[in-house]
Amino acid sequence: MPTISSRASEMPASPIRRLVPLSDSAKARGLKVYHLNIGQPDICSPEVAMDAIRNIDRKILEYSPSDGIRSYREKLVSYYAKYEIMVSADEIIITTGGSEAVLFAFLACLNPGDEIIIPEPAYANYISFAISTGAVIRSVSSSIETGFALPPIEKIEALVNEKTKGILICNPNNPTGYLYSRAEMNHIKNLVKKHDLYLFSDEVYREFIYTGSPYISALHLVGIEQNVVLIDSVSKRYSECGIRIGALITKNKSVHAAVMKLCQARLSPPLIGQIAAEASLMAGDEFLRDMYDEYVERRNFLVDSLNRIPGVYSPIPMGAFYTIARLPVEDSDHFCEWCLSDFEFEGQTIFMAPASGFYISPGLGRNEVRIAYVLKKEDLNNAMIVLEKALEAYNIRK
Amino acid sequence: MPTISSRASEMPASPIRRLVPLSDSAKARGLKVYHLNIGQPDICSPEVAMDAIRNIDRKILEYSPSDGIRSYREKLVSYYAKYEIMVSADEIIITTGGSEAVLFAFLACLNPGDEIIIPEPAYANYISFAISTGAVIRSVSSSIETGFALPPIEKIEALVNEKTKGILICNPNNPTGYLYSRAEMNHIKNLVKKHDLYLFSDEVYREFIYTGSPYISALHLVGIEQNVVLIDSVSKRYSECGIRIGALITKNKSVHAAVMKLCQARLSPPLIGQIAAEASLMAGDEFLRDMYDEYVERRNFLVDSLNRIPGVYSPIPMGAFYTIARLPVEDSDHFCEWCLSDFEFEGQTIFMAPASGFYISPGLGRNEVRIAYVLKKEDLNNAMIVLEKALEAYNIRK
Repeated sequence: MPTISSRASEMPASPIRRLVPLSDSAKARGLKVYHLNIGQPDICSPEVAMDAIRNIDRKILEYSPSDGIRSYREKLVSYYAKYEIMVSADEIIITTGGSEAVLFAFLACLNPGDEIIIPEPAYANYISFAISTGAVIRSVSSSIETGFALPPIEKIEALVNEKTKGILICNPNNPTGYLYSRAEMNHIKNLVKKHDLYLFSDEVYREFIYTGSPYISALHLVGIEQNVVLIDSVSKRYSECGIRIGALITKNKSVHAAVMKLCQARLSPPLIGQIAAEASLMAGDEFLRDMYDEYVERRNFLVDSLNRIPGVYSPIPMGAFYTIARLPVEDSDHFCEWCLSDFEFEGQTIFMAPASGFYISPGLGRNEVRIAYVLKKEDLNNAMIVLEKALEAYNIRK
Repeated sequence: MPTISSRASEMPASPIRRLVPLSDSAKARGLKVYHLNIGQPDICSPEVAMDAIRNIDRKILEYSPSDGIRSYREKLVSYYAKYEIMVSADEIIITTGGSEAVLFAFLACLNPGDEIIIPEPAYANYISFAISTGAVIRSVSSSIETGFALPPIEKIEALVNEKTKGILICNPNNPTGYLYSRAEMNHIKNLVKKHDLYLFSDEVYREFIYTGSPYISALHLVGIEQNVVLIDSVSKRYSECGIRIGALITKNKSVHAAVMKLCQARLSPPLIGQIAAEASLMAGDEFLRDMYDEYVERRNFLVDSLNRIPGVYSPIPMGAFYTIARLPVEDSDHFCEWCLSDFEFEGQTIFMAPASGFYISPGLGRNEVRIAYVLKKEDLNNAMIVLEKALEAYNIRK
């Protein structure tokens, strides 16, 4: 029997999806499982998107252009301009979710062995895509004690060597909810410029910022326009995770051409998803405002509830819809599994993502979990009751 | 400015898509362009699929499971059983088009530097995915003189060395239309078994076989079940190229687990496409029979027309919907470009894919083109008139 590849062996199982079989078993036993593990909002997708799908007027579900439907890319120009991100339709490539944008960015920009610096904890799938493409992640640790602020830039610069090719940030951050400040973004800009690095910037949560602080896009940073590869997705802002429509934006023509070769190899992004995403741009400010209001309330409720549970601590996330919380357990991997396999409270249990999978450095985050506040308040309330009961039972059990 | 990766530099531009800008310019000049370059059928997608899209009854366009919607995978079991491919739902992974299945198969099974043997000419995107994943293609040439039959197995075995990890075939073949015989498939089986190789088998054209010869799936081959990775797609059989729904099928649990890590990293295949693909299974035999009849007629018409043009030769393809034709030109890359940039006949021109991009060995296929017979007969007829006129004008011009 031929062997699988080393990269496949080395890839970690997704901390977001690894426990799905346990969750399925729990459901099969009749339990109500609260999904706090994955950024799958329960918000309805915009009616205009559903209407566009229902009214599809094509007879052939054919390939679209490899860089995406032109009319959609043209409308995105105005969308980005609202955030003072000034790009042309030719600088936007539509991808199959933000995931493909990350994968193609790595394939187009990095050679096997090239290093990228990522603040940890980080979105776990960056790690998977780095391993699968041969890129090496050098991590700089942020900590729950400082609310996951960017570590001092000197610590980041200390990692730069002749193999360093880029820095990757996610802003607002998944999994921490941290929003990088103007000062932090300027530090990053100076470092990128000084060492001529790529700045891969995942900004899929720009609609989810809960403070008065400004959103600083990588494409706002003057003087490094050729270094920035922006990663985006409609999944979160329109609650359309399933349609798999993202974007890779770059003003660097060489990178654009390199990514386009990959795009042509995979032919085209999903057609119907693009139709839905294009229609979603007409959803209007009201849709986004309602969603925003809902998430602010959920965030406040969740963080407050977490911090009321003995031994639990969560910083106040400024953006996205996740928080990393510290639990009074030694091994959150085991605790999360146990919640699904051995625990129930009044017919319910919770599915959380162990934080260890979001850290690159072994051993970090062992007593932390990532919680996505993508459920309505009533469900979050029940989930927090279940969490408190689970922690009690788990720690007595030991 | 940071540099792009070596793999991106080395990736060839897609022979199918490279000339799209020239074609767009020709259209902008008011020309009717016959698209023979890409396997994008003009057949209407099944009504049941369109109805399923129009009647979508979800409120949230959410992630689906990483291996695809279970009910769809369960229905696929019966679909494959009709072709005597006996697989379970747990051996089927739904992918974002056949393209992702190829990419993930390479990432999961091959280390950078590992070699795979592919008969050439071959589907060009295999080459792109191999380069992007660091796999090395060793090619064995088939020739228009023998109708692109599999070269003698001894020639293939001569390429096997300690780095050889697999063989990739496409059956029925894109770009040649060749259908591998039982004897050829048995030769491949023996070689795979003897050297314990992977057999990557792209079988997306199984509905398109125009001879009395049987279709031999790689999963029909007894004794190498653990070696086979089958690649599939609904794009061609239901004329649904745009929905990006394919499949990777393997009975090898290690490969399955490795591919699943990649699937979890990219979260899920497109939701609406899966809904359409699942509905398409109800399209009934009539849909497929009508399509089949249409393609038989197109094939016969195209091959007959090609062989009537002075200096042009096409073998009779036994399957798929492509043929590789030899033209009386020295450089079909230049000729195909010229047709789009400098030629017109009565306001029309043709877009063909130069065959050179389907060969791995430099210099092969220079006077050949791939023609997809995906247009209705009237359009094919016009396209053949344009081709004849173009060849006359091109060769006088020299």
